[in-house]
Amino acid sequence: MAQIRVLSADDISKVLSVTDAVAAVEDAYRQKAGGEGTAWPMVYEQFEPGVSDMDIRSGELSASGLFGLKLTAWFSRNPSRGLPEIYGTTLLCDDTTGAPLGLLNASAITGLRTGAAAALGVKWLARKDARNLMVAGAGHMSTFVVAATLAACESIERVEVWDPRKEEAPESRVELMREQVAQILSQAGVERSYQIVAVASGEEAARKADAIITVTPATEPIIQAEWVKPGTHISAVGADMEGKQELSSKLVSSARLYVDDRAQSIASGELEVPVSQGAITADDIVAELGEVIAGKAVGRTSDEQVTVFDTSGIAVQDLAASRMAYDRAVERGLGTTVEF
Amino acid sequence: MAQIRVLSADDISKVLSVTDAVAAVEDAYRQKAGGEGTAWPMVYEQFEPGVSDMDIRSGELSASGLFGLKLTAWFSRNPSRGLPEIYGTTLLCDDTTGAPLGLLNASAITGLRTGAAAALGVKWLARKDARNLMVAGAGHMSTFVVAATLAACESIERVEVWDPRKEEAPESRVELMREQVAQILSQAGVERSYQIVAVASGEEAARKADAIITVTPATEPIIQAEWVKPGTHISAVGADMEGKQELSSKLVSSARLYVDDRAQSIASGELEVPVSQGAITADDIVAELGEVIAGKAVGRTSDEQVTVFDTSGIAVQDLAASRMAYDRAVERGLGTTVEF
Repeated sequence: MAQIRVLSADDISKVLSVTDAVAAVEDAYRQKAGGEGTAWPMVYEQFEPGVSDMDIRSGELSASGLFGLKLTAWFSRNPSRGLPEIYGTTLLCDDTTGAPLGLLNASAITGLRTGAAAALGVKWLARKDARNLMVAGAGHMSTFVVAATLAACESIERVEVWDPRKEEAPESRVELMREQVAQILSQAGVERSYQIVAVASGEEAARKADAIITVTPATEPIIQAEWVKPGTHISAVGADMEGKQELSSKLVSSARLYVDDRAQSIASGELEVPVSQGAITADDIVAELGEVIAGKAVGRTSDEQVTVFDTSGIAVQDLAASRMAYDRAVERGLGTTVEF
Repeated sequence: MAQIRVLSADDISKVLSVTDAVAAVEDAYRQKAGGEGTAWPMVYEQFEPGVSDMDIRSGELSASGLFGLKLTAWFSRNPSRGLPEIYGTTLLCDDTTGAPLGLLNASAITGLRTGAAAALGVKWLARKDARNLMVAGAGHMSTFVVAATLAACESIERVEVWDPRKEEAPESRVELMREQVAQILSQAGVERSYQIVAVASGEEAARKADAIITVTPATEPIIQAEWVKPGTHISAVGADMEGKQELSSKLVSSARLYVDDRAQSIASGELEVPVSQGAITADDIVAELGEVIAGKAVGRTSDEQVTVFDTSGIAVQDLAASRMAYDRAVERGLGTTVEF
């Protein structure tokens, strides 16, 4: 009789730290650049436009010995019913036998792997002396991008959080973020000093930022070209479906462009609108970030360049982080093993 | 804290009979015809051509209140390692909240729902007095199509099993099939008399058959047009990817054609080769079987017509059968409920 191991959100929080997630996603990107990581076509279905949808992202990570999928369901009316807005569920299978290995609550993993992607953009593409980080967006996911970037990039000292929907990022929201970031870093054993502050003006924050991370559901650009000084790196996280855009097309067209997946960036990521407007073409993408990590492509070549990394999220990130969580849970005997 | 219910192959065998599967698939087809059942695009990946592959079929059954997916992994070298050749895993989610409800070992369900589809073709399209059933193919799946057809179609008295790969369907194989069919029917509380015999000549069996079910991996036609007498119904089960074909294009082009899903039949089902050869076009499909079941399309209109039902398998079948199994398991307290 076969068995499957089921890992709850609680189990995963015990075995996967933000530092682990950064290492796992870095490895996933590297595997993808070497042809060992493949993202298969995404299945996307809107139940009620703007209210509820679901997607299934699947793929293979052959050096990690697995394939699998993540089903993400977004139901925006859930919080009013006392339920989570997003459910994520990951199924891992052994790629030498096809046997299902594990079922993981992917909610915690999604935050960590998304934060890790944003942080890897800063780590590999920002100037080595980048000190000021601006984060546009003050939602749940902002906490993870801040924690991951502080964990992955030692030079960052100050984080300015701007909520483009409001005149000022509410102090109470940033206070909560400080607590959560401290908790995530502490769990990872990261000890460092930093500041997180709320700011009222996006333009002012952008003008002094060495690195910017955008993590909003914007459908109109929230960062303008003239706000960004030479040498800044931008990780664009928010845009993940047609019509979403966080950076002005002028800004994108003047920057050195990197992506997590070429096809997906143009189909449904930050580059979709600029390409459809004719501001850039697919040939303007310098490389996938994994190619830079693997030493197959060049990152920043001067301190004056503006670099952009667009990540809309690919299955190999989830698979790599899930594999790490699964292996540790097996080692430590965590989770529930069920006859299957 | 949310929970998920995990149902093993053993749990499912206790709650889902062949009669249940026929009822569930009939309901799924009816829902699809009424716009309440939707199959989303299939993700298909070949790991090693002819040796191992996997597919993810997903969709929604809104009248049943759920959406979900089935991941099927086929690894042909597994039996030599003492492992199952096919692993099937189904994830069910609530379509009003997105919450994952259950994880089911889909291996047993796949056999039952495939048998049910073949049987529903006979039930709805064969002549009411059809007595002789020919089954082409003597593999594992043949047992399910025989059991389901005997459960769903009272008039069938005799089943002739032909293995096109061999001169004669080995008696030992048919003896095993007799035992398994008796067990499946007994579990469903079906009491009836019938005969199952092995035959050496496909042509002879086809010439006297009132209904034919093909369930082989053939890539060349195994049933010729001149073998089939007027009034015969054929359920074609085997072809489920490009290049597979069980019925000659001449036979298909002269028959009244029904399918489970128009697009899939032409893309990767029994109609793919005849359409690519120009023997038929999409307009030659009379209806999806669900439209006949729902009274929205007409089935057989004379006792002389040859009818063909092509089923390559759609997610709504699995969802409907899985929902039934899940609900009964909840009622009976079966399966393992895990904090998730």
